[in-house]
Amino acid sequence: MTSGGATLGYIQEQVGHVLRDFLHLQRPVLLGAGEELRPGLDALTSLLAGGKRLRAAFCYWGWRGAGGEDCPQILAAAAALELLHSSALVHDDVMDGSDSRRGQPSLHRQYANRHAEQGWHGSPEAFGAAVAILLGDLLLAWTDQMFQSSGLPAEALRRGQPVLDLMRTEVMAGQYLDLLGQAAGDVTLASALRVVEYKTAKYTIERPLQLGAALAGGTGPARSTGAATATAYGLPLGVAFQLRDDILGLFGDPAQTGKPSGDDVREGKRTVLLAITRARASARQAAIIDRRLGDPHLDEAGVAEIRAVITGTGALAECELMIDRHVAKALAALDEAPITGEAKEALAELAVTATARRG
Amino acid sequence: MTSGGATLGYIQEQVGHVLRDFLHLQRPVLLGAGEELRPGLDALTSLLAGGKRLRAAFCYWGWRGAGGEDCPQILAAAAALELLHSSALVHDDVMDGSDSRRGQPSLHRQYANRHAEQGWHGSPEAFGAAVAILLGDLLLAWTDQMFQSSGLPAEALRRGQPVLDLMRTEVMAGQYLDLLGQAAGDVTLASALRVVEYKTAKYTIERPLQLGAALAGGTGPARSTGAATATAYGLPLGVAFQLRDDILGLFGDPAQTGKPSGDDVREGKRTVLLAITRARASARQAAIIDRRLGDPHLDEAGVAEIRAVITGTGALAECELMIDRHVAKALAALDEAPITGEAKEALAELAVTATARRG
Repeated sequence: MTSGGATLGYIQEQVGHVLRDFLHLQRPVLLGAGEELRPGLDALTSLLAGGKRLRAAFCYWGWRGAGGEDCPQILAAAAALELLHSSALVHDDVMDGSDSRRGQPSLHRQYANRHAEQGWHGSPEAFGAAVAILLGDLLLAWTDQMFQSSGLPAEALRRGQPVLDLMRTEVMAGQYLDLLGQAAGDVTLASALRVVEYKTAKYTIERPLQLGAALAGGTGPARSTGAATATAYGLPLGVAFQLRDDILGLFGDPAQTGKPSGDDVREGKRTVLLAITRARASARQAAIIDRRLGDPHLDEAGVAEIRAVITGTGALAECELMIDRHVAKALAALDEAPITGEAKEALAELAVTATARRG
Repeated sequence: MTSGGATLGYIQEQVGHVLRDFLHLQRPVLLGAGEELRPGLDALTSLLAGGKRLRAAFCYWGWRGAGGEDCPQILAAAAALELLHSSALVHDDVMDGSDSRRGQPSLHRQYANRHAEQGWHGSPEAFGAAVAILLGDLLLAWTDQMFQSSGLPAEALRRGQPVLDLMRTEVMAGQYLDLLGQAAGDVTLASALRVVEYKTAKYTIERPLQLGAALAGGTGPARSTGAATATAYGLPLGVAFQLRDDILGLFGDPAQTGKPSGDDVREGKRTVLLAITRARASARQAAIIDRRLGDPHLDEAGVAEIRAVITGTGALAECELMIDRHVAKALAALDEAPITGEAKEALAELAVTATARRG
């Protein structure tokens, strides 16, 4: 590995390797309990093969930025975040009733289908949800196993652990607020932004960067400046990342997003995009949003109507502007950051990748 | 703490303390995200106040048996198992659709009720399940935080980690086999016993004991003999413990079990008690079991009919005999165990407590 060559592609490849190695270690434990575990193992293997590995990449660059060398140990520790994230996706899909993920049926849907095909006892949906809860738990438990067995020195792990702990508690707090907001019908921009801060910005960028930096070490002022950089770069970038996700969910190509267009609306998600739309909407436009939001049977014509309101109110243009402004803010934070030049370059590139329009 | 005085009551009290201290540390993190988290924190506080703390007690006595001194650090590490177990209970109740736990509405039921009372958007049941999935995840993530921050030396934690890892993977494998068995209608004794081995015996007794012993240290023959004792004592005791639970679920006092009588039958659980009953049943008796098992609306008369079949086939008496034989086997394993006399005494007492008829 030559310095400067650690592109996202390299990280994705290495993280894929270490996750496969990790699953290989779990195989005898699971199959030792029973051959019946094989489809579960296969489903997890297939799930863990995908994903952009953004959280691992930010953790890796937090480490490199603080002066850590490229090595298999940091890639293994960073890959633990992908186990955490996969767990969150599996459980999110159950909580949201989402039937697809990365262009495939979601895990609970796969198991519900299998139950129905086999003509088993009970409800296919309840069975699918139960298996997905369990497999998500397994991924969450494996997060620590992978982190602790990454091969990093005990001292490094002890520095990183509190960041990992905080990250998990915060993301679950954010999800709780999100669920509550959806249920209570809270559509204000302020509450949508708070959910984004906890569920996305801290979880995807700020904490992974801080985790990598904490693992690499450093004490005193350098360390707290590093943590401040992760915040100054991570929080605005996280908002931009989520806004792009909101837009792609309605205006993107389902072949690229891996989800049908408009699923956020069907699931009643209080996105920032919709909060801005609603704040700019006329009474007639607001009525359309309120009627459509959370309708699980919303068809393509209904989604098109929502898109027209988002565009018509100027909310889409405002969000694009917000993305640009937030990315610029994140990039500006890099300029003065006390991290290696190489890390600055990689993080600038990641900021663009994470918020790109993708076609 | 005088030696020999570490009764289950002492462990329960200390574990209660450290769990409350742990929750106190989480308070600013959760409430920092939003005041809305307060009911979630309260629900977890109330949940964590209860329970027999058996897993913590076995971990504690694994430590003491290997020569470890009574200290706050081992109690904190052992209490981490109670976070793990609470997570499993919260998720189990969602998976099984159980409406009560320890005499209170289960967590998902509490939130479904709150949703209905507030007249919020969407389905109260889906909301309750989603919040319970999330709070169960939080408890699972906290397991590691509590274990890692127990204050035990890094070297001890490194010895214990693989046991904790194995324990979590095994219990989830056992639950998976259980779900699959229920769905596929597998009622053989062999498969019921395999589920008990993974879901109960390893998880409740063998691995907690081994975890305590691993944390205390020791190498070479002494260590592997200690692990073998945990198996020789833990596996038969685990079977006896589960059989007692099966019996109490149908013949016990709901005020003591905290669950309505017959819930296992309503949920279609393939218990060992029912597998033995079915193996001894006449065609007429088997038809009653098959018709009732998994009927969510089974009333008290239906439960009484099942009880009559269990008693009539002689399965109840056989199970009582099995409990006695398994407890005797566990106690015999203690005799030759290379552990302190104090630990032998405490583990003998725990074997009786864990399998007592409770009134």
